[in-house]
Amino acid sequence: MKTLFAEDLNVINVGLQGFADNVAAAGGTVTQLSWAPPVGANAELGRTLAGLVGNPMVEDANAQAYARYLAAQPRLVDLVLARDAIAGLGGGERRILHSGPPIGWDDMCGPQRGAITGAILYEGWADSLESAEQLAGSGSIALDPCHEHGAVGPMAGIISPSMPVWVVENTEHGNRTYCNLNEGLGKVLRFGANSPEVLDKLRWLGTEFFTVIQAAVRRLEDADLKPLMAQALHMGDELHNRNAAASGLLFKRLTLALLGSDVDRGAMERALRFVAFNDHFFLNISMAANKSMSDAAHGVPGSSMVTVMSRNGVNFGIRLSGTGGQWFQAPANPVDGLYFPGYSVEDAAPDLGDSAITETNGLGGFAMAASPAIVQFVGGTPADATANSRRMLSITLGANPAFTLPALNFGGTPAGIDAVLVADSGVLPIINTGIAHKEAGIGQIGAGITTAPMQCFSDAIAALAATLPHETGDAS
Amino acid sequence: MKTLFAEDLNVINVGLQGFADNVAAAGGTVTQLSWAPPVGANAELGRTLAGLVGNPMVEDANAQAYARYLAAQPRLVDLVLARDAIAGLGGGERRILHSGPPIGWDDMCGPQRGAITGAILYEGWADSLESAEQLAGSGSIALDPCHEHGAVGPMAGIISPSMPVWVVENTEHGNRTYCNLNEGLGKVLRFGANSPEVLDKLRWLGTEFFTVIQAAVRRLEDADLKPLMAQALHMGDELHNRNAAASGLLFKRLTLALLGSDVDRGAMERALRFVAFNDHFFLNISMAANKSMSDAAHGVPGSSMVTVMSRNGVNFGIRLSGTGGQWFQAPANPVDGLYFPGYSVEDAAPDLGDSAITETNGLGGFAMAASPAIVQFVGGTPADATANSRRMLSITLGANPAFTLPALNFGGTPAGIDAVLVADSGVLPIINTGIAHKEAGIGQIGAGITTAPMQCFSDAIAALAATLPHETGDAS
Repeated sequence: MKTLFAEDLNVINVGLQGFADNVAAAGGTVTQLSWAPPVGANAELGRTLAGLVGNPMVEDANAQAYARYLAAQPRLVDLVLARDAIAGLGGGERRILHSGPPIGWDDMCGPQRGAITGAILYEGWADSLESAEQLAGSGSIALDPCHEHGAVGPMAGIISPSMPVWVVENTEHGNRTYCNLNEGLGKVLRFGANSPEVLDKLRWLGTEFFTVIQAAVRRLEDADLKPLMAQALHMGDELHNRNAAASGLLFKRLTLALLGSDVDRGAMERALRFVAFNDHFFLNISMAANKSMSDAAHGVPGSSMVTVMSRNGVNFGIRLSGTGGQWFQAPANPVDGLYFPGYSVEDAAPDLGDSAITETNGLGGFAMAASPAIVQFVGGTPADATANSRRMLSITLGANPAFTLPALNFGGTPAGIDAVLVADSGVLPIINTGIAHKEAGIGQIGAGITTAPMQCFSDAIAALAATLPHETGDAS
Repeated sequence: MKTLFAEDLNVINVGLQGFADNVAAAGGTVTQLSWAPPVGANAELGRTLAGLVGNPMVEDANAQAYARYLAAQPRLVDLVLARDAIAGLGGGERRILHSGPPIGWDDMCGPQRGAITGAILYEGWADSLESAEQLAGSGSIALDPCHEHGAVGPMAGIISPSMPVWVVENTEHGNRTYCNLNEGLGKVLRFGANSPEVLDKLRWLGTEFFTVIQAAVRRLEDADLKPLMAQALHMGDELHNRNAAASGLLFKRLTLALLGSDVDRGAMERALRFVAFNDHFFLNISMAANKSMSDAAHGVPGSSMVTVMSRNGVNFGIRLSGTGGQWFQAPANPVDGLYFPGYSVEDAAPDLGDSAITETNGLGGFAMAASPAIVQFVGGTPADATANSRRMLSITLGANPAFTLPALNFGGTPAGIDAVLVADSGVLPIINTGIAHKEAGIGQIGAGITTAPMQCFSDAIAALAATLPHETGDAS
C-alpha cells in the first residue's frame, strides 16, 4: 500500500466518464474505456441474455444453422414471371410484394407507395395514378413482405405477378428464392417512380428483355453463383452497393450463352447493352443468392442466428433462425451517407429495402474490406472499410471460407450474425445502402452506411429465450 | 560529457553491422540502420551522381518528360497485321522482333529461340523445326528488339510480319505503338512452345479471330484506354500479371461492337469465347498503352526518367528519356516467386519479356496496392503489396493522378522512375512477372517478383551525365 501511494496515480476507468474526469482533475493519469452495460441496463433482459450467452442448446442450434448456411450452393436456374413461380401471385390473385417487414398502405413511406401505384398500372389493374392509389388504399390488393414469399427486392422491393423474377436454387438443400430485375439508375420503380417512361421500361424488361435473358439463363454453361461471387470479392465488389465485377462476370456468361442460341441478334444486342451499362445489374441476383443461403439456415429451434434483416422505409425488421416467421421491428436508424448534389438528409426516406440480406450473410457492409473503392460511393476511407469488416467479426458465428477478403489476408468474410452477440456486445450490424428520396418518383439521392437498431435484437433474444425449455421454467 | 557517461549507452549505428555488434557485446543498446553508400561506393560514379542530384537542368528535363507522360492519352485504334504497320516488317522483309535489349541468336535463352523457330514456321520460311533453327542461326533473318520498332511483346515477345498487332495511338502526341495478341495460357509461343497445336492456334488468331476482332476494334464506341485502365485498378488489377477486370471491361466493349456488326455469328462466338476465357487477354493492350505513354516522355535531352525496362531472358535493359536509343544492360536478377507444382527455380529461365513496360509507367509491381489478390499468383502478402507501392514512391518523379490506388487512400500510383533516385537510394524498381521454363516449349512454370539490376541505372546515369555540358567540362 505504501508503495502504491508513493507512485504516480495511473488509472484505467471503465464506463462512466465522470469518474475519469475526477481523477484527471486531481492530477492523475487516466485512460478512459467506453463501456455500457448490455441491453441498455435492462435487468430482466440482462438475465435473459445471461441465460443465452454460452447456452449449449443455443450454441448447438447455431452450429447447425451456420453449417447449413456454409453448405448452401446457390445456382441461377431460371428467369420466369413472378406469377409462375411465387406462391400467392398466380391464378389472377391481386397481390403485390414489398420490401421489409409487414406494413399497411396507410403506414408506407413515399417511395413504396409510389412503386405500388406503378405496379398496379403495370398490371393493368387501374388506368390512372389516382385510381391506382385509390385501389391500393381500398385494401382489395394484398400487400405482403417479399420475405414471406421466398423473395427479396431492393429499395421499395415491389414484385407484382407480371414481373420477371430471377430463380435461385440452393442445390444443397433444394430451397428456391426469387428477386426482381434491376432496372438501372435514374427514374425507376424501386425508388418509387411511376411515370410513363418508368412503366415503358418495365414493359420492355417484362417482354423482349425477359425472353432474351430467360433463354440465356436456361443455356448458361456455369450457373453456380458462389464461385462467381467469391471472384467478384477479389475484384473490388462487396456485392451490395458495388456489383461492377459480378455484373461483368455475368455479362460474359450471358453473352456466351446467347451467341450459341437462336435468339434474334437485334434483341440480343438491346438486352446485352442494357446489362453492360448497369453495374448494379447483379445486385438482384446477389440478393436472391443470399436469401437462398440464409433460408438454408432458417428454422433451427433455439438458434439465435439472424436470417433476415430488412427495411420497409419505416421500420427495420429482423428474423432469427430459431423464432420462425416472427418479425422483430424497430424504427430504422438514419443513414450516414454521401448525398448527390442538391440533396441532404432532410430529403431522405428512412432506410429501405431487402438488400440488407447481403449483410445478413456477411457481404455488403460486412465485406467492405474487399471493396476499398466503395467508400467513394458510401463515404469514409478505405481504412474504415477494412475496420468495419474486422469489427463485424465480433458479432458473427464465424467467417465464411468461401468468401475471402484479400485485404484481410484472405480471411473469410464475417458471416452468420448472432443476435446474442449483438445484444451482449452492443456492436450493431452495419449496412451499406442506397438512399431514396422520401417522396415517390425522385429516385436515389445518395448512398451511405447505417446500422440495424438494437431494439430488434433485444426483442428477438427475449422471444428466443421464451422458446427454450429451461428459460421458461415450465418445460415438461 | 559527464552526464553522457552517467547514462545508459544508447547507440544508433548507420551502415556496417560490425560496429553495432561491438556496442551490443559491450552491453549497450543499439539500433542498426541498414545503409550502404550509393552506387557501390564507386567514387567516380559518386561524383557523377552528386552532379545529377538536384541538377536544375535534369530537373527541368524530368518535369517536361513527366508532364508528357501524364498528358498521354492512349486509344486502341486498330488491329492489323504487323507487316502493314511496323517499319521493317513490310515488303517481304525477313525480320522478327523479340523482347528485351538487342541480342543475337547464339546468345538467346531457350524460350526466345523456341519462339523464333515457331515464328519462322508460322511465316512459312521453313518447313521443319530443324531447318527453321538453321535459318535463324544463319543470320539471314534480322532479329531486332520490339522496342526499336515501336512495339512490345510479353515473354519471348516475338512479332513476325504475319502476326496481328494491336495499334495504340497516343492521341495527345500522335505516336503509335504495337503489341501482339495474347495467346492464353498452356503451350504458347511466348513461352517458346512451337508444336503444331501452338502454330494452329496462331493461324486461327491470325485469320478468323483477327478478322472478327479487327471489325470489333474498328467499331468500338469507346476506345480510350486510360479510363478503362483506371477502372480496372479499382477492380483488383495491377495491369501486368492481373488483367481480369480490364479483360472483362474490354470483353463488354468488343461484344457490343460486334453485335451491331455483320460479322458471322459462329465466328463471333468463337472469338468472344477465346477472349472470355483468357483473363490475361488485356495484358498486351496494357503493354502497348504503356509504351505509348512512356514513348511520349522519351527523347527529352537531360532527362533521367526511365522510359523502357525490358528483358531478353539473359540481360535486363533500360533506356532513359535523355539518352535516346542507348541501352543500359546487366544480367537479369533472379525471380522470387511461386512455382507451379513440380517446378523450382532450377527450371526457370532468367527474367524475360517487354512486359516491364507496365512497371516503367507505374503499373504492375508499382500498382500492387490496387491488387491484393495478386499475391496468390506472385507470392507475399497483401501487406507486402501495399508496402511495395509505397516504397516505389521514393524512386519516381511523382504519382499519376489518372491511376489511383484505393488502398493508398486513392493516391496516384508511383510513376516515372528516375534513374538518379534509384542510384542514389539503392531502391530497385520491382517487377511482377511470369516465369518461363528455361527450355523452349514447356511454358509458364510460375510467377513472382524481381527487381531491375542496379548496374543498368549506374551505367545510365554515367551516360546521361556525359550528355550534360557542365558535366563534361568541355561544353562550347
